[in-house]
Amino acid sequence: MTTIRDVAKLADVSVATVSRVLNQTGNVSPKTLQRVEAAISQLNYQPNDVARSLFKGRSKMIALFVPDIMNPFFPELARAAEDVASKHGYTFVLCNTDGDGEKELTYLKALKQKSVDGIIIVSSTLSKDAMAHLDLPIIALDRKIGTNIAAVTVNNRKAAQQAVTHLQEVGCKRIAHIRGPQGASNAEDRMAGYIDIVGQTDWFNPSFICEGDYTADHAYKAALDLLQQHPEIDGIFAANDLMGVGVLKAAAALGKKVPDELAVIGFDGIALGEVTIPTLSTMAQPTYDIGARAAEMLIEHIDTYDLNRFVEPVEYEVKLIKRQSTERRTNDDK
Amino acid sequence: MTTIRDVAKLADVSVATVSRVLNQTGNVSPKTLQRVEAAISQLNYQPNDVARSLFKGRSKMIALFVPDIMNPFFPELARAAEDVASKHGYTFVLCNTDGDGEKELTYLKALKQKSVDGIIIVSSTLSKDAMAHLDLPIIALDRKIGTNIAAVTVNNRKAAQQAVTHLQEVGCKRIAHIRGPQGASNAEDRMAGYIDIVGQTDWFNPSFICEGDYTADHAYKAALDLLQQHPEIDGIFAANDLMGVGVLKAAAALGKKVPDELAVIGFDGIALGEVTIPTLSTMAQPTYDIGARAAEMLIEHIDTYDLNRFVEPVEYEVKLIKRQSTERRTNDDK
Repeated sequence: MTTIRDVAKLADVSVATVSRVLNQTGNVSPKTLQRVEAAISQLNYQPNDVARSLFKGRSKMIALFVPDIMNPFFPELARAAEDVASKHGYTFVLCNTDGDGEKELTYLKALKQKSVDGIIIVSSTLSKDAMAHLDLPIIALDRKIGTNIAAVTVNNRKAAQQAVTHLQEVGCKRIAHIRGPQGASNAEDRMAGYIDIVGQTDWFNPSFICEGDYTADHAYKAALDLLQQHPEIDGIFAANDLMGVGVLKAAAALGKKVPDELAVIGFDGIALGEVTIPTLSTMAQPTYDIGARAAEMLIEHIDTYDLNRFVEPVEYEVKLIKRQSTERRTNDDK
Repeated sequence: MTTIRDVAKLADVSVATVSRVLNQTGNVSPKTLQRVEAAISQLNYQPNDVARSLFKGRSKMIALFVPDIMNPFFPELARAAEDVASKHGYTFVLCNTDGDGEKELTYLKALKQKSVDGIIIVSSTLSKDAMAHLDLPIIALDRKIGTNIAAVTVNNRKAAQQAVTHLQEVGCKRIAHIRGPQGASNAEDRMAGYIDIVGQTDWFNPSFICEGDYTADHAYKAALDLLQQHPEIDGIFAANDLMGVGVLKAAAALGKKVPDELAVIGFDGIALGEVTIPTLSTMAQPTYDIGARAAEMLIEHIDTYDLNRFVEPVEYEVKLIKRQSTERRTNDDK
């Protein structure tokens, strides 16, 4: 392997000079620069990032934690973050945590050992304390982690209010909610938005709120139970689109017509919602933008790292997309 | 930062002994082991992978190149490969190449500098020669790269023959093909399978083969043109499911009934095909299995690396899944 010493020898300069050329620090005369560059080129010398990161404590790597890249919301986030990482010369590490706190800690430890420069985390289980001793720049994405870790999220509570209001506007009188996982800040906020709107109505029933875990299968079963126990329910706000698809399947299995007998709205804006039968109304997030913004913030955070510096959280707006699953009913007075 | 010397000092043993404990090499007495472990625990010492990889030339990292993680075929591959990587203690790097040869070379160079241990590559543009000088274990996934790089693929040609035969069996008399990108081995093999079946028929027309790039948008436009120029076409074999969805959209836009006037079959078996209107028949790949197998092969290859050792390619079977888009027509003699 060619080393920096070989380059220095061929260019007839010191190792320190070659280092200054490589790191673009300090003055080097044009003539010397030319000699060093010629030697680098002739020897096909490639500075080794491993040695460099040992020296600087930097690896030029960032990581993204997602529960599962197979949930169709996450590939777009990952693509956005990787695009930004790559643009800035960072290598992008992907970790599927399954929302499992122990897996998350194992990943954190492994990445710390690899001197990863910073991490973007989608998590409901990690606490600020678990990460404090890591001494690493971290950005929370999609879900907040404590109050001191900078987060890129959407205005979940307000968007949930809008979703439920939309169901009311198309004529729903008994609206249920299939919530996201316990402890996920976005799930709590979306449920709070639902309660903001229906909590004071005379028909409100806490058993209209179903547990969910953001998967279609679980929501399918939950919706089957819910609709059998409470046939009066005529609207469901699912906390994400995958669960919305599960609700559509449950309605089909029970012979309930969507939207005439049951209106359904999801959250996220994944492409899947455009091809279901019927198509699924949703609160669409600017997914690529929030993934890219999280990566930009992380890299800026790495460059100016100061554990005590407060990084402003960022909250994006969500947009109501009306599709067939909430088309105004022909019979509004039922 | 705590170093191995601090551990050795506290445990009152040599650095070499601590190293033997950490790497689980050589004999250490139970008593010494206990002392070293107590010291590691007390000092919260974490051996640094960067230093270790500089020493061993290993980083315990593998990478996966995909054209775009947002194509719904790739998240399952990525999940499978990451699961296997993580099980074996490897960190998993994801690179979106957009099928762009220059981007691929930039990634390769960056990963080489980071001493990545091996790469799984989904590519139509990289040549064996471009990778030869890298001196790195590589597994080709989904698409072959030359003949000397081990590949994990499916039997594309035979599966394409099956898809076209299925269209014939449900009554199609004029079958078109929307192919994948030029130069992608899987696209070439799928087209060859199509020609195997229809090439000798009296109606075969080379302009029934449309260019495609595995995206829905492009296939939508291609199918619009094709069906307008050749209204006699009554069956389309799309080289992947995303393009199959594009064909369904084009048929809907032209008022062509699927499957009665046009039968459609895709390839891959992504979840999207289960929720389209109508649902999409497909040649389903064992996606998770091939992603996991590629990662297993790569890690085995890393452990026993020998550039001259031939790694057997692996070919998986594909399964025909019949859905609404190819349900037998009511009027078979049209």
